Amino acid sequence: MDHRAIGVFDSGLGGLTVVKELHKILPNENIVYLGDTGRVPYGSRSRETIIKYAMEDIAFLKSRDVKMIVAACGTVSSTLPREISDHLGVPYADVVRPSAQEACRLTKQGRVGVVGTSASIRSNSYGRTISSLRPEVQVFGNACPLLVHVVENGLVQPDNQIARLSVEMYLKPLIEEKIDTLILGCTHYPILYDIFDDLLNHEVALIDPGKCTARYVKDVLTAQGMLSDRKELGSTDYNVTDQVSGFEQTASLFLGEPVNGSLNRVELV
Amino acid sequence: MDHRAIGVFDSGLGGLTVVKELHKILPNENIVYLGDTGRVPYGSRSRETIIKYAMEDIAFLKSRDVKMIVAACGTVSSTLPREISDHLGVPYADVVRPSAQEACRLTKQGRVGVVGTSASIRSNSYGRTISSLRPEVQVFGNACPLLVHVVENGLVQPDNQIARLSVEMYLKPLIEEKIDTLILGCTHYPILYDIFDDLLNHEVALIDPGKCTARYVKDVLTAQGMLSDRKELGSTDYNVTDQVSGFEQTASLFLGEPVNGSLNRVELV
Repeated sequence: MDHRAIGVFDSGLGGLTVVKELHKILPNENIVYLGDTGRVPYGSRSRETIIKYAMEDIAFLKSRDVKMIVAACGTVSSTLPREISDHLGVPYADVVRPSAQEACRLTKQGRVGVVGTSASIRSNSYGRTISSLRPEVQVFGNACPLLVHVVENGLVQPDNQIARLSVEMYLKPLIEEKIDTLILGCTHYPILYDIFDDLLNHEVALIDPGKCTARYVKDVLTAQGMLSDRKELGSTDYNVTDQVSGFEQTASLFLGEPVNGSLNRVELV
Repeated sequence: MDHRAIGVFDSGLGGLTVVKELHKILPNENIVYLGDTGRVPYGSRSRETIIKYAMEDIAFLKSRDVKMIVAACGTVSSTLPREISDHLGVPYADVVRPSAQEACRLTKQGRVGVVGTSASIRSNSYGRTISSLRPEVQVFGNACPLLVHVVENGLVQPDNQIARLSVEMYLKPLIEEKIDTLILGCTHYPILYDIFDDLLNHEVALIDPGKCTARYVKDVLTAQGMLSDRKELGSTDYNVTDQVSGFEQTASLFLGEPVNGSLNRVELV
């Protein structure tokens, strides 16, 4: 039993999709969230810079004495080496492994597509993880660097033509590969779920990393006897590295509900 | 006469559109360029964070002993207060004043539109500068946060539907205001010049801040007797804060020619 909070971080606010799912399945846990909004996005940056930023994010969460660290960011998950993530002193989860496991479970034809940021796709992290689980499965990746901005600019209605054309452009090579399963490998993409589903004719299994990752966190904490037995609802402490104004609006988009918790601007390092 | 280099900085590589024009009209000057690619973009960040980052960029250029500092970034130009920019110890130029002057010169109906990043438009810097020059001119601004990403993702062909729909979306309220002049108030937008011109039926005067700013720099250095009398071509020293790989390709898009000069990755602060 462990009453400390779960630490969750992301380059921005997309990682709140993991918090949303944690609220559903672990409602009694406290959560400390860090969104590095002063330096978002990570997905277009170099490996070296991403690792430096991620280490600073992790140091912040460790200073808050969390019991587990969750990289709720496809880019960090794809980039942070195990030599670092295996030695944090607390359990670590990322969004790649849970999504890869789910893809291996769902694919029937063994043809899995992955969409993500440039850094995530360049790293081939999903491909490597899937190969380690089911070597016969073929993985096809495509970087979709514009989509995060399409979402952040609110172009998310299912009939928005800019959003539809952008998703269509990125899906084209994956459709040609006849994928039967698609990992939405960036926290922003599930916001465009209906557009993806529509353009794939409802024939491809879509995987939402937020959901898979929350289940994985619950499994780890359960296995290690680290769940809290708190009876009341847990609290969530939100932290960002740029201004707090405007947070509520964007955050509620990803949380799927109004923000309820403390909100602070923090300096890293 | 002053043989020191001209210092030019931007949040990323868009500021190279100013370097491109400096190369044309001041070919014998040395230039030190800094692109803060490790923290780009600035345009969606808070005023406080933008000023902090700009001060670090300026400190880098000052450490290189430049004779003039040019903020080739609409966001910094719109945000940095005069209490700072007037006291750098060397002349300072930004992209707002030269563009505002040109708009005042060109507008016939006194109806000027401005497109830029969220921070640039929020600051109303163009409106304030134009009002100080020609108080009767009306200024209509619209933030276009998606366009920088449209350009950076290479969606720049005049017939690209995502680019056209995005520009159209942002132009709509300005067309309704019957503007006769439009400031392309972000270094990335002139790359979409043909699309803007087409969607405005070639009836609106388009202002490219890179060109206006380079002329302004020449005027300042001439007036202060600070031009170099170097006979050979000047050299350009490029510096970025993220990886140098990929620089050549993006940089040449903005420079309009292949990169010719030294290239280094640097750490700020």
